Amino acid sequence: MKNWIIEKTGFDQQEIAANGNRFLCGNGYMGIRGTLEEYGKEQLCAINLAGLYDKVGEGWREPVNAPNPLYTFLCVDGVKYVLPQSETICHEQRLDYRHGLVYRKTVFKTAQGTVTITTEHFAHMEKRHLIGMMYYITSDYDAEVELYTGIDADVWDINGPHYDEVNMNLDENTLVVQAVTHEKKEKVVVAEYGVLNGICEQAYEKSEKKFLRKICFQCRKNKLAYLEKLAVVYTGNDCGDPLEDAKKDLAESVNMGYSFMRKKQIDCWEELWKNSEVEITGDKDAECALNYSLYHLLSIAPFHAKSQSIPARGLSGQTYKGAVFWDTEMFMLDFFLNSHPKAAKALLQYRIDTLPGAQEKARHYGYEGAFYAWESQEGGFDACSDYNVTDVFTGRPMRTYFKDKQVHISAAIVYGIMKYVNRTGDSELLYHGGAETVLECARFYDSLLLQKVHTDVYEIRDVIGPDEYHERVNNNGYTNRMAQYTFEQACILLRQCSKDKRMAEALKEYDIEQIRMRFEDNARKIYIPKPDKEGIVPQFDGYRKLEDTTVEKVRSRLLNEKEYWGGAYGVASDTQIIKQADVVTWMVMFPDDFTAEEKWINWSYYEPRTEHGSSLSACMYSILACSCGKPQEAYPLFLKSAQADLKGGGKEWAGDIYIGGTHPAAAGGAYMTAINGFGGVKIADGQVTAVPQLPESWEKLKFRILYQNQIYEITETKENAEIRKVSCELEEM
Amino acid sequence: MKNWIIEKTGFDQQEIAANGNRFLCGNGYMGIRGTLEEYGKEQLCAINLAGLYDKVGEGWREPVNAPNPLYTFLCVDGVKYVLPQSETICHEQRLDYRHGLVYRKTVFKTAQGTVTITTEHFAHMEKRHLIGMMYYITSDYDAEVELYTGIDADVWDINGPHYDEVNMNLDENTLVVQAVTHEKKEKVVVAEYGVLNGICEQAYEKSEKKFLRKICFQCRKNKLAYLEKLAVVYTGNDCGDPLEDAKKDLAESVNMGYSFMRKKQIDCWEELWKNSEVEITGDKDAECALNYSLYHLLSIAPFHAKSQSIPARGLSGQTYKGAVFWDTEMFMLDFFLNSHPKAAKALLQYRIDTLPGAQEKARHYGYEGAFYAWESQEGGFDACSDYNVTDVFTGRPMRTYFKDKQVHISAAIVYGIMKYVNRTGDSELLYHGGAETVLECARFYDSLLLQKVHTDVYEIRDVIGPDEYHERVNNNGYTNRMAQYTFEQACILLRQCSKDKRMAEALKEYDIEQIRMRFEDNARKIYIPKPDKEGIVPQFDGYRKLEDTTVEKVRSRLLNEKEYWGGAYGVASDTQIIKQADVVTWMVMFPDDFTAEEKWINWSYYEPRTEHGSSLSACMYSILACSCGKPQEAYPLFLKSAQADLKGGGKEWAGDIYIGGTHPAAAGGAYMTAINGFGGVKIADGQVTAVPQLPESWEKLKFRILYQNQIYEITETKENAEIRKVSCELEEM
Repeated sequence: MKNWIIEKTGFDQQEIAANGNRFLCGNGYMGIRGTLEEYGKEQLCAINLAGLYDKVGEGWREPVNAPNPLYTFLCVDGVKYVLPQSETICHEQRLDYRHGLVYRKTVFKTAQGTVTITTEHFAHMEKRHLIGMMYYITSDYDAEVELYTGIDADVWDINGPHYDEVNMNLDENTLVVQAVTHEKKEKVVVAEYGVLNGICEQAYEKSEKKFLRKICFQCRKNKLAYLEKLAVVYTGNDCGDPLEDAKKDLAESVNMGYSFMRKKQIDCWEELWKNSEVEITGDKDAECALNYSLYHLLSIAPFHAKSQSIPARGLSGQTYKGAVFWDTEMFMLDFFLNSHPKAAKALLQYRIDTLPGAQEKARHYGYEGAFYAWESQEGGFDACSDYNVTDVFTGRPMRTYFKDKQVHISAAIVYGIMKYVNRTGDSELLYHGGAETVLECARFYDSLLLQKVHTDVYEIRDVIGPDEYHERVNNNGYTNRMAQYTFEQACILLRQCSKDKRMAEALKEYDIEQIRMRFEDNARKIYIPKPDKEGIVPQFDGYRKLEDTTVEKVRSRLLNEKEYWGGAYGVASDTQIIKQADVVTWMVMFPDDFTAEEKWINWSYYEPRTEHGSSLSACMYSILACSCGKPQEAYPLFLKSAQADLKGGGKEWAGDIYIGGTHPAAAGGAYMTAINGFGGVKIADGQVTAVPQLPESWEKLKFRILYQNQIYEITETKENAEIRKVSCELEEM
Repeated sequence: MKNWIIEKTGFDQQEIAANGNRFLCGNGYMGIRGTLEEYGKEQLCAINLAGLYDKVGEGWREPVNAPNPLYTFLCVDGVKYVLPQSETICHEQRLDYRHGLVYRKTVFKTAQGTVTITTEHFAHMEKRHLIGMMYYITSDYDAEVELYTGIDADVWDINGPHYDEVNMNLDENTLVVQAVTHEKKEKVVVAEYGVLNGICEQAYEKSEKKFLRKICFQCRKNKLAYLEKLAVVYTGNDCGDPLEDAKKDLAESVNMGYSFMRKKQIDCWEELWKNSEVEITGDKDAECALNYSLYHLLSIAPFHAKSQSIPARGLSGQTYKGAVFWDTEMFMLDFFLNSHPKAAKALLQYRIDTLPGAQEKARHYGYEGAFYAWESQEGGFDACSDYNVTDVFTGRPMRTYFKDKQVHISAAIVYGIMKYVNRTGDSELLYHGGAETVLECARFYDSLLLQKVHTDVYEIRDVIGPDEYHERVNNNGYTNRMAQYTFEQACILLRQCSKDKRMAEALKEYDIEQIRMRFEDNARKIYIPKPDKEGIVPQFDGYRKLEDTTVEKVRSRLLNEKEYWGGAYGVASDTQIIKQADVVTWMVMFPDDFTAEEKWINWSYYEPRTEHGSSLSACMYSILACSCGKPQEAYPLFLKSAQADLKGGGKEWAGDIYIGGTHPAAAGGAYMTAINGFGGVKIADGQVTAVPQLPESWEKLKFRILYQNQIYEITETKENAEIRKVSCELEEM
């Protein structure tokens, strides 16, 4: 297990989609689904591009997949051998998640014997536009082989087609496909160079959307033939002339050669792991699952970008519209803060840069300040629909309120920014838009506040909290507390103005004194629910008057397994059954708001009432359990988070539409559980402390974290935590 | 037509339920559905009792029907002749709605010839417990007849059975049935005395729930046989010993005889019509329909009671739970104020007496003051369910908000009380609970008011206005205006305290000065929507951003003709299509809030967007059209209201459940249209004025109204209105 390999042997058609996520590789610029070389859009093949979106007609706006330069298949003695159609003798897929290398081996049975293909590919971690692939062919007899390889521009989409035009050109021996998106006429260029056994004389074939090399040769018995391939992807998002840049970049890599680039890939990943790896002695399963989760986070992190965030399904395809949710700030950020703060900064810079979009959304709904997108695309465009769910009984779209009433999103941005600043000590982000963002979010909540006339308590009504099964509730505790936090953070920045000229400059548009007093008043008077007589903090006004039942009983009321549990008439809506951690999320984020006893009372109350219908749920329960000294209760929920992509499962299909993908928030949540939960790490006031809460099987837990430009190496046993400052300098990642 | 008769000839099984409403008679104590003598609960036979309710298990609470003493059928030569089973030669039902006399004639074809039965019955308008019936039998040959007549205690219910016990006793020649309700063990006693041809020697039969006389005789060719019957109904609601009172009362009536009681009935109705009748020269259809509507109002008015209101479906049966809605104050009250103010007072006394129920409801929802029941039963118990509609697609109950968010109900009570006081000049009602009721309603709205923090505008959010298709809206104009009105009325009473000792005494529990200042502040600052740039008053915040479409288009989207248009996902919910008059109701109630031009712009905007899915809708549009000088546009909507029960139609069945009944609010609305719309009558500041707006066909309109103890007789032509004070003294009705 700790060999950093995961593998699946045998071919199972049902697993094609799950394997696409399981064996995904990526580098933050792109994600390459773990599909096979011969696969096309039917198998959800995708070179998913970060930050490039397209909208066609009335369809949802969604990310665009690049034409696929890995596309390859072969014919032997005139017969095509491809999965899922052909018969295999054996088949396996493997991932070296230490180095981002994806392998495949398939032995096809042919009329005269067997043909074996073995491949590897990667998305290069240093040269972000580069894809490399090796494709080995052997046969146990002299076989006549036609190898087809090139670029498949017939890309997967859910609401496409996204390319209006696809042009194919041969540039010396390089295949170049240039496609143009529908909405913004953005160019996407893929250039590919591939040679078999070092010989580049080939024939070429163009079909409507495929541009292929056709290489015919005799594969001698037990002799290895190998196709070596390098390709690059560029878009108009990256540079002024993607065609020119693509050609130039590819030529450079070809010059250096596949092996050299592969070596670089390995070195680069080794460097990444230095501050990322988490060692768990005594529990190989957990160690593997956790580091595999971190692999996924590292594969989609914007190391290369100044301003880019991570979608809820990473770079694993079309689902969730490729949009950025609160998942990033709430569940993924911690890992990057602890290991790669520059990536963390890019995540937050994306939010700062999309402030105008958030301001426009606020204005649209009649509010002040910044109301961030629930499903954020480029420029902060909110891809969320007012009708996000389809009624299975009528086929009609159902009015949902995720977009307009899940107002806690803006506070998550503030939380991310302030956490970044406190962890790194880097205030530049604040001076360059960050402080303004915090204030605009505070102004947003200010404009939401209501009070009963002639009273002095401020409320936030008609919202959806983290638990989406209960719509349009009043005084969701989590939401109110996050709004209060936002006011408090804004006040901290406003008070800073008197002694920090750069802050004063950054906030010069505001009437500092007046707005500070107002926000202080808001923070003081906003209604924060307290534990009731039984110690339960009600999730929202009237929550405990709802039917008190069990998840199983509610599930048994389903008339259709695909029906939505929430909305106005869902099976959960009028009950105390919730989708995901809500009050518990509050308790995790603000541990000082409650005593350990209060936390455990609420954990024990809410956990059995939670469906865990979101991958964001389990980790919050497991972190809180740890903070109550209950690591054993935390452990199964931790594993659930850490294995989200390894095991697959979860909801993958809604009718014919694929809604699966990777779960980076669960990955980030598992990391937080390990570090802050089991590891008991607290980082505050210049101090790093750790109080171990290791589960039974864990003998040792070891990891590094960065805090204010200092690396700490923490080694814990059940009894003891050793915190060591590492003297090496922080590399510029 | 002006012969005060309506009739239906021929037998049509489909019309049984509609005829039950059409030929209903009543006297405010009870309503007798216009069914045939041989009918039972399957034909929705009912002696519906005002104010007596029962609840069984989880079923809805609903009114209780008395055992039916009209039950009669005959056998000829050993064969039973009853509808709907037997063959008839001719059949007709008739109603003399001048005198509350219901007739039936049926000629049955028998093996040897024909047998004819002719009947009449009435609910006595003076002796409220008394029912009278004559049942004539003739034959065109010598026929052997067995006549069965007595009391049928197998009563119609929707959520019954309501009687736990049914006891039958013969008391001399009187049949006595005593039944006991399930919930409150209330006694219901029916005593019946019937003789054929003046001979009371008979046999008796008891089946499980029927107690019958069996009378065998030869019906000689062309000789009349006649059954004369008197019966009384008493309940524990009326008196301490219903059995004793029933026997005594019946004996008295039997003593005086059927003919004498019938004469009294006619005299009593003639007296009622003196101040009720509306004469319309030139339009017999309208005249008939309108006076027939008034007949229905007179038949269910609480003339006999000090404190009793009228259910939304009158006394026509089990539907709408026999509950009292805002219909009474808003749509029926005007007729009684103008013609029988003592009945009006009883309607309002019911509300004053149910103040504790309203206060309890407010407390239940966390509010102050009085939140009146949406569906009021005895004691102000709110019979409305949180799940008032069944989803036709899933069969599941749908969460509706009629009960908890239709907050405008309390203002309707205030409106009724203040209108009564202003019209009659009788302040006693205020001194005895009325003023307190007004203040408690104002306190309710006070506790609903919200303001955005740091602003000075008061809002009411999350309500349902009169248009029930749009749930949980903010700042419904009608609701806010009614709340403002409530504050204003409360302030009037509070200011009165300084010069009116009895008022000061009535309100001594309040801090007069403090609460007045607070209500004045509320009235000043509450947000009242204004016409937008196009002159349209938005029904609620964001109304005009909803899809603008047509009623027909919305109807075409139905997947099931019985599906609910409103709720969260109804076909109308996200559109501007509304169920019933909403802004227009506001404009009718507060005519001085808008110019005639503004009214007409809004009429023209909203009318095509209104489904008129409630019988309360059409009359509001027709009154407003009149006030804009458009009587022709008003006329078809007026007829629709006036003919609601005459023509039948409307929604009568929801699956297997009967939801029809009479429509007294439509009747009252038609009356208001005639008097205040076409008649242009305004009553204010001691003055009665009239500006005719007669429709084309109306040559003359003549009616009486009472105002502050003075009868005014108003005679109008298209050009002119003559207002004459009638000198006769007001009788004590």
